Amino acid sequence: MISRLAKLRYDKLSNLPAQSRDKFSQIDYWLLQRIYRSVGQPQIRLTLGDRLEISPETGQPVATIVIRDRATLLDLLFDPEVGFGEAYRDGRIVVDGDLVSALEAVYRSEAEMGSGNWFARVVSRCMAFAQRNSLHGARQNIHRHYDLSNEFFHLWLDDQMVYSCAYFAAPSMNLDAAQVAKMDYICRKLNLKNGERVLDIGCGWGALALHMAKYYGVSVRGFSISREQVQWARKRGQQLGLSLQVEFVEDDYRNILGEFDAVVSVGMLEHVGPERYQAMGRILSNCLRLGGRGLLQCVGRNRAQHFSNWTRKRIFPGACAPSLRQIMNIFEPWDCSILDVENLRHHYARTSQLWLERFENSAKEVGAMFDEEFVRTWRLYLAGTVAGFRAGTLQLFQLVFARDNSAKPPGTRAQLYRE
Amino acid sequence: MISRLAKLRYDKLSNLPAQSRDKFSQIDYWLLQRIYRSVGQPQIRLTLGDRLEISPETGQPVATIVIRDRATLLDLLFDPEVGFGEAYRDGRIVVDGDLVSALEAVYRSEAEMGSGNWFARVVSRCMAFAQRNSLHGARQNIHRHYDLSNEFFHLWLDDQMVYSCAYFAAPSMNLDAAQVAKMDYICRKLNLKNGERVLDIGCGWGALALHMAKYYGVSVRGFSISREQVQWARKRGQQLGLSLQVEFVEDDYRNILGEFDAVVSVGMLEHVGPERYQAMGRILSNCLRLGGRGLLQCVGRNRAQHFSNWTRKRIFPGACAPSLRQIMNIFEPWDCSILDVENLRHHYARTSQLWLERFENSAKEVGAMFDEEFVRTWRLYLAGTVAGFRAGTLQLFQLVFARDNSAKPPGTRAQLYRE
Repeated sequence: MISRLAKLRYDKLSNLPAQSRDKFSQIDYWLLQRIYRSVGQPQIRLTLGDRLEISPETGQPVATIVIRDRATLLDLLFDPEVGFGEAYRDGRIVVDGDLVSALEAVYRSEAEMGSGNWFARVVSRCMAFAQRNSLHGARQNIHRHYDLSNEFFHLWLDDQMVYSCAYFAAPSMNLDAAQVAKMDYICRKLNLKNGERVLDIGCGWGALALHMAKYYGVSVRGFSISREQVQWARKRGQQLGLSLQVEFVEDDYRNILGEFDAVVSVGMLEHVGPERYQAMGRILSNCLRLGGRGLLQCVGRNRAQHFSNWTRKRIFPGACAPSLRQIMNIFEPWDCSILDVENLRHHYARTSQLWLERFENSAKEVGAMFDEEFVRTWRLYLAGTVAGFRAGTLQLFQLVFARDNSAKPPGTRAQLYRE
Repeated sequence: MISRLAKLRYDKLSNLPAQSRDKFSQIDYWLLQRIYRSVGQPQIRLTLGDRLEISPETGQPVATIVIRDRATLLDLLFDPEVGFGEAYRDGRIVVDGDLVSALEAVYRSEAEMGSGNWFARVVSRCMAFAQRNSLHGARQNIHRHYDLSNEFFHLWLDDQMVYSCAYFAAPSMNLDAAQVAKMDYICRKLNLKNGERVLDIGCGWGALALHMAKYYGVSVRGFSISREQVQWARKRGQQLGLSLQVEFVEDDYRNILGEFDAVVSVGMLEHVGPERYQAMGRILSNCLRLGGRGLLQCVGRNRAQHFSNWTRKRIFPGACAPSLRQIMNIFEPWDCSILDVENLRHHYARTSQLWLERFENSAKEVGAMFDEEFVRTWRLYLAGTVAGFRAGTLQLFQLVFARDNSAKPPGTRAQLYRE
């Protein structure tokens, strides 16, 4: 096994007394080896300072992950994801080479492994409880991410502040164009008609609701529990003269009443939590008139799996990217028909790559707004998002559903793609 | 409640002695009322001979269902679906008016009801066991439907004997054109390339395998456990000079070995049974090379529900139309990505309507081949299929999946719809 694993270089250890050198290096090497194995022996070089090194047996490593001290080695052993995230945040781990490529290599090899160790699983359960999305808990969870500061998000999102997967209808599109294309694609999938009433659950900074109202002549009621988002959205609505047509409400999805011709929810389901999907389904089906259509977009998985403990600790408390099977728990109890599912994960890889580039260009401003720890935290989150969508550990599902028992003539999806 | 239900006409009872007339008619009326309620008070007139009648309170009934005798009333009470099917088959129930419309009305009102009575549920469980799809059982189940006679199916299917949902790419398409359009649509969704190896699980009479080979230059191995189908498919392969390129194998899907660039299965999953989806998933993912694509088409449901006991007794033993949630049990354990789901139920309503029309045009020949009971049985099955897809109690899912962890540039579905 060892021969398959790595080459150990002792030459750097010559400064230590021979005995302790051997003893320590053997323990360190054993730890390093276990960590390398626990993530599936990815195509990266792993080093402890400049003393020990493990490299892939064949091929060039895509990057080097430098672990600065022995304490970090132990952290990595207990919970590799939290250990890595926290150490990267503190600067106790440094990545030499492209961060996205390094993470992608790890995700690819890790995907073939089982799910985490017992310690990480226990922590995961505790976090799920502590961060549960009760009415109060959801508000706290959302507050911690989306209320960081509108100025911060404006630094690296597109002009309209669309914080979800864009749609690159043409390969040459830039981020702004692809976000507009996404919003329009959603409107076409929903077959919106002038004068219809639309419900937007998790409306973010309001771009989609305003796009629908402006270009499709519908009236929209958008819900968010992020105060910062709702304030921004209302201001934009006023600037565009759409205040009468679009109403932004700061309230939880569980409190929504009324009946609508169409319902849309983009990038919000991740914050609901699978144990509340039946409640979500009740709201969706109660709010949708018979014959109405809905669209749900969310980050998903091939199989049920939590976000990493680190992601839930530092980035998205209480969040979960569900599998399609989990998503069906929303619809099946309420007799909704799934009409269309599209997996847009490569579009999200591109979207988040563009976010990361813009974030890096603004890293100085972000550092001044917060601090360097914050910059590294968000760099790791954004790079991990790109890597996850590239490696396929993350998926992006866009679903169209209906409460429909009509006997229509057969149609096709062709009209979605006419120029 | 009674006032909401119906008008009871006593005038036809005048021939009986007054006392027994009242007694019998009261029991009969009570039974008729219970049956009418048990199917959700549909927009139909229900009569017992020409003596008793229940009509919808408002609006015109779409058809009249005439129950000829009291014994049939009792059958309907125990298991409405088997009772109706058997009585229709025997001629003890007659539908006055359009059969499809009558069934559609019942399905629509029934859909709002709970699921069957306890007796029907017990029978359903017993049937599921008796008709389980073991290697032997599956062969018997398939034999009973698909080996009826190739000549029989040829009377009402299209020229190429495609026995699954067609795709009406243009509204004007006839059945033959729509079946070709469906096969081509599948090839485009699979992005087939010259020289690739394709596995067709449940190849029927071979039309799709031969279409793929002829127009996309792939080699295909098709599997079916219907002897009649395989014989027919091989003969057609020879006629088209494609015997070297397309191999038809009479064997169970569980025995398939080998690795393929693409896997397709159309209208076969219904015969697998949800308790064997994990096994089906293992075959699909084992047979698909990394990076390969698969397509699965099947009749489905909004929520998990068996085919009616009558359908499983007379038409499709051991069959089940799964919900999308159930279908995900195929893919989730094997880390397959769902790329695309399209619901084509309106296309299947049209397809089966055209089958029914052709069947009616050949009813005389069918009667001569079998008997009148057989004609009524298949009329009810085909009409029920049209009605189910119209009312939305049946859905048609076409899924594209992949074993894919590549980092491709984002693509769109637009190329599927270019002229």
